[in-house]
Amino acid sequence: MLSTFGHLFRITTFGESHGGGVGVVIDGCPAGVELDIEEVQKELTRRKPGQSILTTPRQEDDTASILSGTFEGKTLGTPIAILVGNKDARPSSYEPFKDIYRPSHADFTYQAKYGIRNWMGGGRASARETIGRVAAGSVALQVLREYFPLEVVAWVESVHTVGPAKVDLATVTREQVDKNQVRCPDTEAAQEMFTAIDTARREQDSVGGVIGCVARNVPAGLGEPVFSKLEAELAKAMLSLPAVKGFEIGSGFAGTHLRGSEHNDPFRMSRGKVVTTTNHSGGVQGGITNGESIYFRVAFKPTATIGKVQQTVDEQGEERDLAARGRHDPCVLPRAVPIVEAMTQLVLVDAFLMQRARAGASFFSEKTGQN
Amino acid sequence: MLSTFGHLFRITTFGESHGGGVGVVIDGCPAGVELDIEEVQKELTRRKPGQSILTTPRQEDDTASILSGTFEGKTLGTPIAILVGNKDARPSSYEPFKDIYRPSHADFTYQAKYGIRNWMGGGRASARETIGRVAAGSVALQVLREYFPLEVVAWVESVHTVGPAKVDLATVTREQVDKNQVRCPDTEAAQEMFTAIDTARREQDSVGGVIGCVARNVPAGLGEPVFSKLEAELAKAMLSLPAVKGFEIGSGFAGTHLRGSEHNDPFRMSRGKVVTTTNHSGGVQGGITNGESIYFRVAFKPTATIGKVQQTVDEQGEERDLAARGRHDPCVLPRAVPIVEAMTQLVLVDAFLMQRARAGASFFSEKTGQN
Amino acid sequence: MLSTFGHLFRITTFGESHGGGVGVVIDGCPAGVELDIEEVQKELTRRKPGQSILTTPRQEDDTASILSGTFEGKTLGTPIAILVGNKDARPSSYEPFKDIYRPSHADFTYQAKYGIRNWMGGGRASARETIGRVAAGSVALQVLREYFPLEVVAWVESVHTVGPAKVDLATVTREQVDKNQVRCPDTEAAQEMFTAIDTARREQDSVGGVIGCVARNVPAGLGEPVFSKLEAELAKAMLSLPAVKGFEIGSGFAGTHLRGSEHNDPFRMSRGKVVTTTNHSGGVQGGITNGESIYFRVAFKPTATIGKVQQTVDEQGEERDLAARGRHDPCVLPRAVPIVEAMTQLVLVDAFLMQRARAGASFFSEKTGQN
Amino acid sequence: MLSTFGHLFRITTFGESHGGGVGVVIDGCPAGVELDIEEVQKELTRRKPGQSILTTPRQEDDTASILSGTFEGKTLGTPIAILVGNKDARPSSYEPFKDIYRPSHADFTYQAKYGIRNWMGGGRASARETIGRVAAGSVALQVLREYFPLEVVAWVESVHTVGPAKVDLATVTREQVDKNQVRCPDTEAAQEMFTAIDTARREQDSVGGVIGCVARNVPAGLGEPVFSKLEAELAKAMLSLPAVKGFEIGSGFAGTHLRGSEHNDPFRMSRGKVVTTTNHSGGVQGGITNGESIYFRVAFKPTATIGKVQQTVDEQGEERDLAARGRHDPCVLPRAVPIVEAMTQLVLVDAFLMQRARAGASFFSEKTGQN
Repeated sequence: MLSTFGHLFRITTFGESHGGGVGVVIDGCPAGVELDIEEVQKELTRRKPGQSILTTPRQEDDTASILSGTFEGKTLGTPIAILVGNKDARPSSYEPFKDIYRPSHADFTYQAKYGIRNWMGGGRASARETIGRVAAGSVALQVLREYFPLEVVAWVESVHTVGPAKVDLATVTREQVDKNQVRCPDTEAAQEMFTAIDTARREQDSVGGVIGCVARNVPAGLGEPVFSKLEAELAKAMLSLPAVKGFEIGSGFAGTHLRGSEHNDPFRMSRGKVVTTTNHSGGVQGGITNGESIYFRVAFKPTATIGKVQQTVDEQGEERDLAARGRHDPCVLPRAVPIVEAMTQLVLVDAFLMQRARAGASFFSEKTGQN
Repeated sequence: MLSTFGHLFRITTFGESHGGGVGVVIDGCPAGVELDIEEVQKELTRRKPGQSILTTPRQEDDTASILSGTFEGKTLGTPIAILVGNKDARPSSYEPFKDIYRPSHADFTYQAKYGIRNWMGGGRASARETIGRVAAGSVALQVLREYFPLEVVAWVESVHTVGPAKVDLATVTREQVDKNQVRCPDTEAAQEMFTAIDTARREQDSVGGVIGCVARNVPAGLGEPVFSKLEAELAKAMLSLPAVKGFEIGSGFAGTHLRGSEHNDPFRMSRGKVVTTTNHSGGVQGGITNGESIYFRVAFKPTATIGKVQQTVDEQGEERDLAARGRHDPCVLPRAVPIVEAMTQLVLVDAFLMQRARAGASFFSEKTGQN
Repeated sequence: MLSTFGHLFRITTFGESHGGGVGVVIDGCPAGVELDIEEVQKELTRRKPGQSILTTPRQEDDTASILSGTFEGKTLGTPIAILVGNKDARPSSYEPFKDIYRPSHADFTYQAKYGIRNWMGGGRASARETIGRVAAGSVALQVLREYFPLEVVAWVESVHTVGPAKVDLATVTREQVDKNQVRCPDTEAAQEMFTAIDTARREQDSVGGVIGCVARNVPAGLGEPVFSKLEAELAKAMLSLPAVKGFEIGSGFAGTHLRGSEHNDPFRMSRGKVVTTTNHSGGVQGGITNGESIYFRVAFKPTATIGKVQQTVDEQGEERDLAARGRHDPCVLPRAVPIVEAMTQLVLVDAFLMQRARAGASFFSEKTGQN
Repeated sequence: MLSTFGHLFRITTFGESHGGGVGVVIDGCPAGVELDIEEVQKELTRRKPGQSILTTPRQEDDTASILSGTFEGKTLGTPIAILVGNKDARPSSYEPFKDIYRPSHADFTYQAKYGIRNWMGGGRASARETIGRVAAGSVALQVLREYFPLEVVAWVESVHTVGPAKVDLATVTREQVDKNQVRCPDTEAAQEMFTAIDTARREQDSVGGVIGCVARNVPAGLGEPVFSKLEAELAKAMLSLPAVKGFEIGSGFAGTHLRGSEHNDPFRMSRGKVVTTTNHSGGVQGGITNGESIYFRVAFKPTATIGKVQQTVDEQGEERDLAARGRHDPCVLPRAVPIVEAMTQLVLVDAFLMQRARAGASFFSEKTGQN
């Protein structure tokens, strides 16, 4: 709850967009895992601001310091604390509207909840909070790869009315995704998306879109029935990200247009393994992975911060006009790609450790002949 | 995790579709609340099988026994255990396919996870597990109504390709929803939905659809920033239900087609309160309620159990034909309506207690002048 | 928290001394474990009232019904719900002092906390709540024995001023403990203890004492550093029992009279394993088991219910005389022996599953050459 | 679990004795509390090494940096991250025995658990880990004082065979405790204790002892029945501290020598409040506070690090002689006093928030006429 995510691989994030920095404490990481810090840093760099004209011009290195939990390049099994400083904070740029509730931001709701808020930037609602998630997600991936060849790839599937991009779930890679600034592996669609974002930017407006994500090579048997179904934990993970308004797995909303006889995924044998001939389930059945690829889609609303003049009210209850001047992204999706991947990895590592706790050897079941 | 939901108002469900019964233990319920058992029973009756030709013919009273936690009609603050027996279980009807993995059911994944499963019915993956949720959700609503006039109403918004129904979020009531067997308050749409379900039933097939839900009169300030955003907990709650493949709140996926200047909800004052002129946010901003109505949509896939012949494999890895004969619903949505409401109430009561723990008097903030 | 104990092997107890019954839901039990129900019942019988003149004459069979979570004699990995009815409840005997706060009972504190209480018996503070713990503890032991030959034995070490009994930690068995009504394996001391309890009983008074407990054959590496040290979880488990006022592990309070050079446990090798030549640590170092026997002592105050007249006040703030007439144990220790064992097993199974989650193969460390 | 303590006021500590520093993230702190950083620092200074010849000569300022969670001197309700650097770490002094298991330290058990350990200092088992607890405990006290005039005072009650000190539970203050280096308010006993510690120090040996603690002005109604009894949480908190081997509350082990008629605490009225004429219960009944002072005692074993030669084994299974040369305290008790207070405050703030969550107005019960 609160600022902690996960049951066994638990991360606790801290920090606001303006203040001493942001970070994460990872508790419950298995010991003895070789930790490649550069891989962690690479993911933070994929997320950092100032990457292109499509993103906020705020300049942050987002260089991670690991304060604890490793020794001679390996994890100790003790809490791994990772800290990233805030360097290019500019509280003064927020001063003019310090008592104004920015529409569709969390200013009003934080005030209603806490009776106090840090008006310098978005506080905990800032996307900077996700730095800790990305760092922890990279650690999670490194842990999981010790056990199975997990591949998690997310991409921008649509932006505003552009899309969906054509993406092959079976083969898409992070390299393909990263080859353009939009992070859409469909080059043609990417071009149009770029234009859509850039136009919004120039018009002081913003756009949203949909991110797709696939996780390949996940063993069958992960996820808990009932309340901690894998899809439930994924949904929570995604809806916990700023600006997310929707989540669907497998056939999703479109699947409601099929009949059961069309939607059910028939089982067959393939090289001694139980597989399905279709994958409307999106890799999960009854909350538990079935060994097929997990895929899902996440809807991000258009960025709330825009340059256009908006009507709102202030803390004194006076109606006010607001023309935001903070630096911001005209579209959060390109930078959200590594965040979606990170959250996916955090859900999977937790489900994996949970399954190891109880299943042990029987996890590699004779009856299913798998894993 | 596992079979427990909630942080402060915690429910733990137990029981399988075939066995000694199903139930729930509610821990953390405030003391001194007048508990109307008949209201609990009424909700169970809305969920129970055998209500109409649209639902499974399994005959269960689903009569709840309260074993503990109340005294002279009031809650004691101690765990409330509620038990419902299984009366019309027919394990023999499952015997013919006891070693067959039914497509898009949890048979294979339970086997992969546990190395063992109860082949009599769906085990924990059965919709009977939701009985405990519905009972607990009714208790949650009764608790919340002591503090504010909460109204939670869900309805069937679409079935297969029929819909969306026309529903007025501001006024729709449970009575309107319950006036037909489909549980769709738009009478015309309901008629078509009935036909769609009944046709599928007669053709030994099944259909899915979308349930809409609104929560009115929720105070501002509920929900935790970061990982336990209210929408994250709602998403988890809904995706934890059998057959759910998608969740969207407020503008959802469609909202990605708007620009920020169209999507942002302007604030204005109304009778001394801060309100918004639109509600694309769906009642939450930054994970916290803003006092507007919460509304969201939930996608249910078509029922996995169908009468038509399907291809699958058995535990020995042999390919088999399966023609299911278990009793089942051709469409789960009419019975899922009270379940969606119950989960919503469980999320809200937990968020409310969490907020009470920390906020106290400051919850009724001078600055926002609200609540 | 609240009514749930454990992180991975989680038990939730419910029920009051007077009402529909008491029980437990065990969540997170590994699947595929052969469950001997008679062994569970045997432990409940060791705990049940009416065993001898030393215990309360309340007549309860305490027969357990398993409602869910097993199939064909094996655990399913799903919640195991166990229910025990209340048969010999006599609320009328509590009526005369329904508005009186019995000294050193929880009447006043429940009223202060909840503003309401069930005056029929002790409610949740009743020793009947421990039925669920004993049942779950037996399941825990059966799970653990699948992995290592765990032996947990508790006994009555002293009663009032009689004791400490002479007990050999390396060899004492449950059979030796159960051979007399006091549950003290030192026959001579047991005789004196019997007299002490029986005298108190006849004088309408009560006595307390100390229970000792040893856990043998526990592998090294269980327990979490920092807040979930094994001794911390044991201490919590024991202090969560009714009437317990103290806990000490290994050298305990007496160990403060030693110097470090006397208290430290030297390591040496024995048959290729690292062992210690003394065991002041009580089997734990830095919160983690070292492979030596765990042993600890638990102080139980004299039973609060006595027949003698006592001064107290009632709910109206009037000073009153109270002569209790409820049935009660003049000394709780004989019946508390299986409860202490059960809680120990619950702590160990949780620590074991936690360690399995993260350690996997490396748990059997090459460097230490153990486990 | 693991490195997190508390349910609603949750602290997560991180860091080892040698590395980038140690710290804590406090999650769930109420918003709007004026936070006196100097008070936090003062407590860290009471705990820091190098205070006198009785403590380790390691030189650390232990200056706290607050990275997040406050704004203009008040808490924001968001995570408060506090960091303290390691300045006087001397890993080289540990090099000679890097592969030796120091007796009664956590070297062997960490190796058995994790298969890896940081041999530079005690890692997470170091007393430096408690820095985060002390800082968080000070924040907890500042929160609680907004609601009631809580006083928590701990002191050294005995050292080796010296004691118990004469201390008046009703009046003892931190100022009286701090007036000598031993932190024993009984000046005469303090003198003898000083001699006992100093003698041990000069003889390269160490001593342990008992710390007493009282919490005054705690409202009735805090603590949860069953598993989270207030005494259970206190016991866990204390046993989670390095070197602790025992805990007793109220009459404790000595109380087992009384009969029920002597031990029960009679109720009477005093100025309209229900009070008890004795306090063998130690302020808790049935796990819940009754408004009387909470008092308890904690046993600390003699420091494991001593200069005398000891027999042990190394990682290769060779028997070795060890003469430790790390800097250490000949007696941990003087520095443990603020740690015991901090843990007490953390338990109380959590119980208080939990009670506020559920009880609201009814917490101030008419029937008991209290609080």
